[in-house]
Amino acid sequence: MPSPLRNGDAPPPRLPSPAVGRHPHHFHSTVSEQKIRRLNALILLLRLAAFCFSLAAAIFMGTNTSRSPGSPSWLHFHPFRLVFAANAIMAAYSLFAMGFSISEILKGATLFPEPLQLWFDFAHDQVFSYLVLAAEAAGTVEARGLVGAHVCTAESAFCVQAYISVALGFAGFVFLALSALVSGFRVACYVITGSRFHL
Amino acid sequence: MPSPLRNGDAPPPRLPSPAVGRHPHHFHSTVSEQKIRRLNALILLLRLAAFCFSLAAAIFMGTNTSRSPGSPSWLHFHPFRLVFAANAIMAAYSLFAMGFSISEILKGATLFPEPLQLWFDFAHDQVFSYLVLAAEAAGTVEARGLVGAHVCTAESAFCVQAYISVALGFAGFVFLALSALVSGFRVACYVITGSRFHL
Repeated sequence: MPSPLRNGDAPPPRLPSPAVGRHPHHFHSTVSEQKIRRLNALILLLRLAAFCFSLAAAIFMGTNTSRSPGSPSWLHFHPFRLVFAANAIMAAYSLFAMGFSISEILKGATLFPEPLQLWFDFAHDQVFSYLVLAAEAAGTVEARGLVGAHVCTAESAFCVQAYISVALGFAGFVFLALSALVSGFRVACYVITGSRFHL
Repeated sequence: MPSPLRNGDAPPPRLPSPAVGRHPHHFHSTVSEQKIRRLNALILLLRLAAFCFSLAAAIFMGTNTSRSPGSPSWLHFHPFRLVFAANAIMAAYSLFAMGFSISEILKGATLFPEPLQLWFDFAHDQVFSYLVLAAEAAGTVEARGLVGAHVCTAESAFCVQAYISVALGFAGFVFLALSALVSGFRVACYVITGSRFHL
């Protein structure tokens, strides 16, 4: 039975060799063009999902107010105000970021200078994902506290709407955190190779 | 072919000996050797800081219990239990991660296979930083709620100790998040160039 390794053939290296011989020029093939288009489309999708969830969460919280005189309103609970503000900020940011992404996909160039745009995207994704997570955790504790304070027995609709808003906010956080991962990878690629197109 | 360590290029004797010559197929210059040593030292420092703060936070929360019969204990508040658990987990993880870092600095090789180790570090840093942030946000809401429930007028020491624990946990989170940034950069460097040594 013939061996797959003939005499004199070195076994294939297990580790990929370091980037010796790679060219730091901005040359990029159709293959990496395609990868970049896919990466941009992925970021756009993640941001669209984050936008939808955070907008829904902000609307659910913002409309969670008096059905009858004397009923509780989200404005009376500081953590719920934080949930509303964080989700509104995330929705606004996601909308702008989607605009940037679409203009980049259509025009093939970033709106700001490239390094600025990459750092802007990554820093905002990361910071806003921390902000939203903290707000949702705070909202969860407040929503659990409502049960203990017997608010929910009298006003179950208020509690259910608050729960839904917090849950939607958590879903938005997941997509924003994934988007931060991808845009962080883009920044690292730029820092290491000097070009986003070196994939 | 120039040797990575030429005459007169030896590293200063006070620094731990680098991994030069252990991986002859990973040719890398003294400059990037130095950068890698700095990056490893930076990660070790960040983890040491995260360990100190999270251990202090866990101890402050875990000892926040009955001074007199009938006084409140942290065990009665779910968010405070979460703060304790999250900080204890972060302290244990940071201790292990410091061990990995020190063994890497001393031996010049990672404990696990390199890609596994890099992904392990980054994933744990990122996930635990989200966990700790959520726990601290929950703890903050609970601590503010104590003031509203007039627990703090009778038991001000309990409240002060809870505040200190939450604040220490936030400080630990900052260092763990910075550590996640650096280890994320290491992973991206490995994914893009096939070697951590290409800086």
